[in-house]
Amino acid sequence: MLIFILNAGSSSLKYQLMNHATHRVLASGLCERIGIDGRIIHDANELKTTTEIDLPTHKEAIAHVLKLLVEGPQKVVDTIEKDIDAIGHRVVHGGEYFHESVIIDDNVLRKLEKLIPLAPLHNPAHILGIKICMELIPGKPNVAVFDTAFHQTMPASSFMYALPYEDYTEHKIRKYGFHGTSHNYVSSVAAKLLDKKESKIIVCHLGNGSSICAVKDGKSVDTSMGLTPLEGLMMGTRSGDLDPAVISFLMEKKQMSANEVVDYLNKKSGLLGVSGVSSDLREIIEASEKGDSRAQLAIDLKCSRIKKYICSYAGVMGGVDAICFTAGVGENADVIREKVCEGLEFMGIELDKNKNKKRTKGTREVNSEASKTKIYVIPTNEEFVIANDTYNLTKA
Amino acid sequence: MLIFILNAGSSSLKYQLMNHATHRVLASGLCERIGIDGRIIHDANELKTTTEIDLPTHKEAIAHVLKLLVEGPQKVVDTIEKDIDAIGHRVVHGGEYFHESVIIDDNVLRKLEKLIPLAPLHNPAHILGIKICMELIPGKPNVAVFDTAFHQTMPASSFMYALPYEDYTEHKIRKYGFHGTSHNYVSSVAAKLLDKKESKIIVCHLGNGSSICAVKDGKSVDTSMGLTPLEGLMMGTRSGDLDPAVISFLMEKKQMSANEVVDYLNKKSGLLGVSGVSSDLREIIEASEKGDSRAQLAIDLKCSRIKKYICSYAGVMGGVDAICFTAGVGENADVIREKVCEGLEFMGIELDKNKNKKRTKGTREVNSEASKTKIYVIPTNEEFVIANDTYNLTKA
Repeated sequence: MLIFILNAGSSSLKYQLMNHATHRVLASGLCERIGIDGRIIHDANELKTTTEIDLPTHKEAIAHVLKLLVEGPQKVVDTIEKDIDAIGHRVVHGGEYFHESVIIDDNVLRKLEKLIPLAPLHNPAHILGIKICMELIPGKPNVAVFDTAFHQTMPASSFMYALPYEDYTEHKIRKYGFHGTSHNYVSSVAAKLLDKKESKIIVCHLGNGSSICAVKDGKSVDTSMGLTPLEGLMMGTRSGDLDPAVISFLMEKKQMSANEVVDYLNKKSGLLGVSGVSSDLREIIEASEKGDSRAQLAIDLKCSRIKKYICSYAGVMGGVDAICFTAGVGENADVIREKVCEGLEFMGIELDKNKNKKRTKGTREVNSEASKTKIYVIPTNEEFVIANDTYNLTKA
Repeated sequence: MLIFILNAGSSSLKYQLMNHATHRVLASGLCERIGIDGRIIHDANELKTTTEIDLPTHKEAIAHVLKLLVEGPQKVVDTIEKDIDAIGHRVVHGGEYFHESVIIDDNVLRKLEKLIPLAPLHNPAHILGIKICMELIPGKPNVAVFDTAFHQTMPASSFMYALPYEDYTEHKIRKYGFHGTSHNYVSSVAAKLLDKKESKIIVCHLGNGSSICAVKDGKSVDTSMGLTPLEGLMMGTRSGDLDPAVISFLMEKKQMSANEVVDYLNKKSGLLGVSGVSSDLREIIEASEKGDSRAQLAIDLKCSRIKKYICSYAGVMGGVDAICFTAGVGENADVIREKVCEGLEFMGIELDKNKNKKRTKGTREVNSEASKTKIYVIPTNEEFVIANDTYNLTKA
């Protein structure tokens, strides 16, 4: 089964064409600057091309991508109609409606529209992407795979904020959590490795956006992102946790509106803001090795937060069988993993520094022999989860 | 030495007259509704009186309290001039200027004025109280004891937010922490009980305001309150930790200004907001025992947050020798202590449920014999710390 995977943003589109049976990616790419000018970076048949092309709306972008799949040197299928079996859409916010992936119908679309206030930048783009696919690839099932769905198993003691209760019932203000497809995938890989009936797993998804999740017996019981992806860990450009009173303080000191402050916390803060060097941890590590003290502070701060979340989630579950590191930073930055695990021996968490330093691909165990808790590096594969859910829902 | 201890708020005054040598409180009380109408609740010579009296400013309030000390049935000293040796002031915010208590001079007053933006409600009242004491009790030393000072030993990885660095250097936005006198006092009592050279202690100060502190070798290394006392644990009426983006969301949904939202998070949230019953945990526990599900949720949420902070601070210190519970809730609510410690056996934290249930006064140990970590209930005594610091600075 060939599945077209789409991740539609407000001015961009990420896509893949995947053969579900073989996990092979036939083509992948990115449309950028939609509505501004337009560019498509497309990768297929071992050929990567960048095309500057006018993309006034998402429709022209998707139409051009579909053309690239069937024409020219990057052709990978004969016809869209015959060869593409289903479309899997990444959807950021499923609110409390969606506990799992679903086949999209009018009812689902209506719910996605209702959820726009919770994800004003993302959900409108997703809805657009879905409607265009329904038009351009008619008669094929579209599936929505949500960033939030995996976390819908959290108990109220994890997802509720200590706000007046009506803010939850009337305005749906609660912790939703994100990166659910990644936490789901990585924790299920770890659960297989543990080979235990009951398991307590902590997944550290450390990319540009970062979140942590406590997974007990396969279910998310707590996670660090909240109503929005701003809460929790320190990220590339996001502040993560903050005294809520800092918002009004910043508004006054910097004469900014509330929305400007939230934008500032999302785009100018985090590793970038503290280090002043970059939002990219590789560049920050390089700067710190050259003696840049703010770069070092950014690293210390980032690792301290991750460590605290790991310990608190061990507390939530009453222990931890495995800690998993995934996504760009989690999979590649051995210094971060080392610093995070440092001093946690009292809890039975013990890294093997040599194993941790080895730069190999694929899933690997990096704890010491004596460690009670396993420490894994597990490459995430969100596209695979989307393809798999799409396959499972549409194979019949 | 007799020490007059003053805690001046914006429309209230708390005070004690303490004999430092004997720790005996000769008189204590509270002036309320200053600038509105006025009331003094005064306790001395085993006589507690409530006087409705016009208190247009703090000056009339302090003047009347001094009169009560030397006149009438509640008289405890002959003259203010001869018998009171020094005045100790509780000051909420010492910023980065003050790492310990100080004798107040013009230079200190100037610094307290500079700190007003960080504590706009508290520091002006403290300054007022200090100036009135200098006028009404002339020639006696005044000492400032800061809520923040004890936390000035925190490393940058604990006190920095992941904001652009200039927000720290220019606007002093960082975590300061509060309840320092309590954390200092309780952790030093625990350190004596542990009788270890190096100690890792976690203090849970759980009152109407609540905060947690990690104390390593006598020094605060992390704490849950931040730039303001809003951050951290769930409190009587304060939300504690929150996705920062909730602020702008609430502003839009409820058509509130940023300051109104911060006020709402400080005064309408926390236990009160979630339970809808009360900000007083005793009433909430009572309601939950009668089956009130929102009261139960408030308890679950409160305990879950405390547990997570305990575990994360154990992580920060690389272990924990003792956990201390103090202040109203911490000293009295055995159900909270039980729920907080539940499931932490994997870390060597094991409560003795029977010992925990016993309602005795004074410092006590409530862990099991097997517990690697001691669990103490230690009554706090912030006034004693203020008196003691005042004594030590002025005895010469």
